[in-house]
Amino acid sequence: MAGSTGLKFGQHIIPASTTFLRTSLSFALVNIKPVVPGHVLVCPIRLVERVKQLKTEEVSDLFITAQRVSTVVVSCFKASSVSIVVQDGREAGQSVPHVHIHILPRILGDFLNNDDIYQELQRHDKDLLESQHRTIYEMEREAALLKPMFHSDS
Amino acid sequence: MAGSTGLKFGQHIIPASTTFLRTSLSFALVNIKPVVPGHVLVCPIRLVERVKQLKTEEVSDLFITAQRVSTVVVSCFKASSVSIVVQDGREAGQSVPHVHIHILPRILGDFLNNDDIYQELQRHDKDLLESQHRTIYEMEREAALLKPMFHSDS
Repeated sequence: MAGSTGLKFGQHIIPASTTFLRTSLSFALVNIKPVVPGHVLVCPIRLVERVKQLKTEEVSDLFITAQRVSTVVVSCFKASSVSIVVQDGREAGQSVPHVHIHILPRILGDFLNNDDIYQELQRHDKDLLESQHRTIYEMEREAALLKPMFHSDS
Repeated sequence: MAGSTGLKFGQHIIPASTTFLRTSLSFALVNIKPVVPGHVLVCPIRLVERVKQLKTEEVSDLFITAQRVSTVVVSCFKASSVSIVVQDGREAGQSVPHVHIHILPRILGDFLNNDDIYQELQRHDKDLLESQHRTIYEMEREAALLKPMFHSDS
């Protein structure tokens, strides 16, 4: 993916090879430490910390993109449901100060208690041990799998 | 609120007096058993079970409404953050088969572990004991508090 430009995700620069959809105002990326298979993120391109700071057209584009992405990951990862979560602010568990939507494909019995997934999500956001991160190769492979699933502006 | 028409929320008919915002495609209602103060719901007017079934203009209106509502409840309930959650499908914890966004104002230390809120959310959706429900009077009072906070089409 030489020549592709990375995108800002809070303080991080996300390699273009780990993103799989880009619209005029939003982008979608695979996760460095997914809580469930197919756990991906959708973000506004503009670096905005809180949902209330998003312009109307950004909210619209962001969630239309989230709808597209959730439909694709549910299908790709053979899930039946999806948890769509925004931790808007530190007290809601937000760790990266850039609005992002967690898209979490769900299958029956994936967690002993259905909502244990959120405890994993909390650990996911706090635990920055690099040893638990996926390799760039694994991430690129997943992005390359997802990218062709979008027909237009990816 | 005599004369106001109720709205469908899955199998339920929601009294208009417990709703506080209505747009062309969405509405917002107070909760019969809030998990935190100010826990409200935003729904599409059309009875659609899953996010993928929503038309583009419905997704757009729904989340623009959710942005407006979350900004107001965070302010009204003196919160600092907000959890925005869609349980899209049974395996994600959805109990009422009608798309709905949970808007949960958050304050520092509201739960011992930040994400225990989701366990409460799960209990909230499953536990239908009427003894734990708020009275219609409490719900109407909260809706009447929130309604004037929206400038236009409520």
